[in-house]
Amino acid sequence: MKTPSDRYRQWLYLDRATGFALDVSRMDFPDDLVTREAARIDAAHRAMRELEAGGIANPDEQRRVGHYWLRDSARAPDAETRVAIDDARAAIVRFAADVHAGRVRPERAEQFRQLVVVGIGGSALGPQLVAEALGRGPARDAMRIFFADNTDPDGFDRLLTRLGGADGLATTLVAVTSKSGGTKETRNGMLEIGRAYGLAGLKFARHAVAVTSDGSELDRVAKRDAWLTTFPMWDWVGGRTSVMSSVGLVPAALQGVDVDAILAGARTMDAWTRESDARRNPALLLALAWHKATGGRGEKDMVVLPYSDRFELFSRYLQQLVMESLGKRLDLGGNVVHQGIAVYGNKGSTDQHAYVQQLRDGVPNFFATFVQVLNERDGEPFEVEPEVTSGDYLFGFLEGTRRALYEAGRPSVSITIPRADAVSLGMLIALFERAVGFYASFININAYHQPGVEAGKKAATEVLDMQRNVVRSVRALGTPSSATQVAAHVGSPDVELVWKILNRLASNPQRPVRRVDDTAADPFDTTFASRDD
Amino acid sequence: MKTPSDRYRQWLYLDRATGFALDVSRMDFPDDLVTREAARIDAAHRAMRELEAGGIANPDEQRRVGHYWLRDSARAPDAETRVAIDDARAAIVRFAADVHAGRVRPERAEQFRQLVVVGIGGSALGPQLVAEALGRGPARDAMRIFFADNTDPDGFDRLLTRLGGADGLATTLVAVTSKSGGTKETRNGMLEIGRAYGLAGLKFARHAVAVTSDGSELDRVAKRDAWLTTFPMWDWVGGRTSVMSSVGLVPAALQGVDVDAILAGARTMDAWTRESDARRNPALLLALAWHKATGGRGEKDMVVLPYSDRFELFSRYLQQLVMESLGKRLDLGGNVVHQGIAVYGNKGSTDQHAYVQQLRDGVPNFFATFVQVLNERDGEPFEVEPEVTSGDYLFGFLEGTRRALYEAGRPSVSITIPRADAVSLGMLIALFERAVGFYASFININAYHQPGVEAGKKAATEVLDMQRNVVRSVRALGTPSSATQVAAHVGSPDVELVWKILNRLASNPQRPVRRVDDTAADPFDTTFASRDD
Repeated sequence: MKTPSDRYRQWLYLDRATGFALDVSRMDFPDDLVTREAARIDAAHRAMRELEAGGIANPDEQRRVGHYWLRDSARAPDAETRVAIDDARAAIVRFAADVHAGRVRPERAEQFRQLVVVGIGGSALGPQLVAEALGRGPARDAMRIFFADNTDPDGFDRLLTRLGGADGLATTLVAVTSKSGGTKETRNGMLEIGRAYGLAGLKFARHAVAVTSDGSELDRVAKRDAWLTTFPMWDWVGGRTSVMSSVGLVPAALQGVDVDAILAGARTMDAWTRESDARRNPALLLALAWHKATGGRGEKDMVVLPYSDRFELFSRYLQQLVMESLGKRLDLGGNVVHQGIAVYGNKGSTDQHAYVQQLRDGVPNFFATFVQVLNERDGEPFEVEPEVTSGDYLFGFLEGTRRALYEAGRPSVSITIPRADAVSLGMLIALFERAVGFYASFININAYHQPGVEAGKKAATEVLDMQRNVVRSVRALGTPSSATQVAAHVGSPDVELVWKILNRLASNPQRPVRRVDDTAADPFDTTFASRDD
Repeated sequence: MKTPSDRYRQWLYLDRATGFALDVSRMDFPDDLVTREAARIDAAHRAMRELEAGGIANPDEQRRVGHYWLRDSARAPDAETRVAIDDARAAIVRFAADVHAGRVRPERAEQFRQLVVVGIGGSALGPQLVAEALGRGPARDAMRIFFADNTDPDGFDRLLTRLGGADGLATTLVAVTSKSGGTKETRNGMLEIGRAYGLAGLKFARHAVAVTSDGSELDRVAKRDAWLTTFPMWDWVGGRTSVMSSVGLVPAALQGVDVDAILAGARTMDAWTRESDARRNPALLLALAWHKATGGRGEKDMVVLPYSDRFELFSRYLQQLVMESLGKRLDLGGNVVHQGIAVYGNKGSTDQHAYVQQLRDGVPNFFATFVQVLNERDGEPFEVEPEVTSGDYLFGFLEGTRRALYEAGRPSVSITIPRADAVSLGMLIALFERAVGFYASFININAYHQPGVEAGKKAATEVLDMQRNVVRSVRALGTPSSATQVAAHVGSPDVELVWKILNRLASNPQRPVRRVDDTAADPFDTTFASRDD
């Protein structure tokens, strides 16, 4: 009879030279999976080859998909693209060296010491992951790195405090990052931080670089105001796969991270995941295991547990990569499919003390993904008991939890990386990029667009338009008026929204509306007036 | 015909005095829900009253459940408990004042400037949430706060770097926090950090306080080594509801947070959520809405989106509170139920650029929970467009996303808090504590134990035992041996585990095993020897 050990050995993907391993043996699939799925695998290979060769892999937006070229520019489909990739990388490394040497310097200080990345989504999560995973600490990194990844006024204030106020800004470089150059959160961050420079008597332009597409709104601002420089983005790199473009390389190089090691790790994984034999291709093994576990319909959540403090954000990075890529309403044939795989997790063994209770005992609506780091620390081991280290405990908890889940019928994938370093990070990112691509082929969807986010943006614009109308009406009405009355004046049936706008503005001193009479039983009868009245 | 606005008004829970609001109108339930569920509601009220009165609400562990007493000690069931709560709070506030004034001071410096909380799960997440939500920034907080919440050797090294090495340790206070006093991750953290003090020529005991139960292993160590002091924990406070006990109050008070404001916010919410009329009880409304949305069986995930940088960790806090409380195998009648609700999320609008694509278009396996903060910032508003602030955008994105999800048939709850402050945080925590308690009654489970985490701990111990045996065998064998051979020598059929142990030890220089011949096709044939041979 076959033991779990036999199945482990049978399915293990192991690279001896690096120590990288993928184990899908504890996922629930039959031994002849690869034979059964031969047609799907062939189609996925074909689609991937076309994508890498420069085909229009994102048909809805009529775009090529080129993140694999970023770490191997020789694979770019034309010389122009190849040169663009090589030039950008060289410019980034050169700029970082100039900043570190003080050749590129701030308006009124010797050297830039801090970096703020203003960006959101694909323009923040990759850089955050890299900074957290590969940073060496405040005194050791070339620059301290901060992020403005939202449009929360209180958040901007908090960031400015952390930067050290006006003195801090004098040595702070800002990288405004937006592929389209029109993302409102990022635009707001730029304006908020730009204002702080102004209040500190500093010229923002002397402290700013842009990462954006040629000719974008942001590009025009950066050129008009003579920012320090601009790094390119291209329409053939999606936000969630942009960490190896300027988006990720600019902050990483400035922080002092070895960007070439990230690229090298990804290039290595890319080579492994082009292998045609599915059993020797870790990305295919992963995608096949997901497909089987989720019924090809997102029936199970993916719980990601890196047993490593440094890699805690990897779970969140995958949440974006997987969910934004796979969470689609239509397949490529136009059928309504409501696809996706929900992803969550933080890190082990910490999460064992949070929600592993439910994983082991509760709703069986997930599969786990363990990530183990082989090397436990640089320097000497320290024994917490005779011949046992903290790292042995970390491994023991990982393996113990994997076993406890397996016993309870909860499947899991286990990934082993050699070290918590740049090469391993590049490998992991490339592994999941490719697995997501294959999985998208299996379920016949476009993994490279995000049509669903438009509805929320459009609705947000309507909310802001309504706010303008509400403020105008309150002023025009002249007397204290209820949400019902203001809605009637605006000509909208949406009293709820009008009330929310009035109530929120009135809760902020110095905003244009104030509360007048709040004693009515029905909140829609509370009256408001212009703050000027 | 009833509009969404009508339903909003009909179901809105609003407290005029504070601005707190709960809106469940976009959840999918019938208007007569409360009447239909009258029996369930009554039973939940009864169970909650018994719990608050000091009944054995955690029957498996034969324990009372007293987190509500922590913010209103007059409600404690006996004088001894009341005095214990009051004394602990007073001792914490006094100790923090002594530390801040330099009356309690480190061995070789004037004053403690930094604090490390060593703890995991319930002993870390609450304090982390409080520190992140209520911290005012490096120069403004009374102490800078750090966390050691894992057993990752590389993580300890990184923390020690961040603390500033030996110089930093001289002004660092360590709060070792473990209710049971026997949590291995925390024990390891204590040993690792204690060792760093030793290497810096400092006495750890002069820099350490314990938060633990009377007579625990940790309590004995703290007394034996004459630590600065010990703060109490009690068996009637569960880890995931311990943030208002010494576990949360010690770090908060030391950081300079107004702990009484947190307690006051919770006390206010407790009063609201004791209301017998379900329609005027926000925790009951919430629990009822969850119950309807998940079929009472965890059929949908809870996606938590606080639109506030400060409250980002609230999603993770709820992940623990909800999943560890509700994720149970058995109900109170001993039936196998595999209950729970999966929880994930980070913050808005940031997550809109990550996975809201899937929420809107993909698998409809969730309901959303929005948290809005009414007050956008302290100080003057800043307009990014005429009469429009960053905060208006934040609200617009929240409301826009809520609407886009609703249009697509995705339900949501919306919670509004007045400010991102201590009172609101206390309210939010208390709201969810009570809602989880009510929901547990609805599905007839014990929300206050965590039997499922034992299996993983037990398996981890077995893994460490196996490692000791493997190392012993490798030494005894004397010649290079494969995993298969070592497993045979150990007398275990688990070659997989033996190989993993050998491979991992050999990947770490200075650990007791080395790789000898790695050329065999089968990894189980790779040979290993003792590093001493």
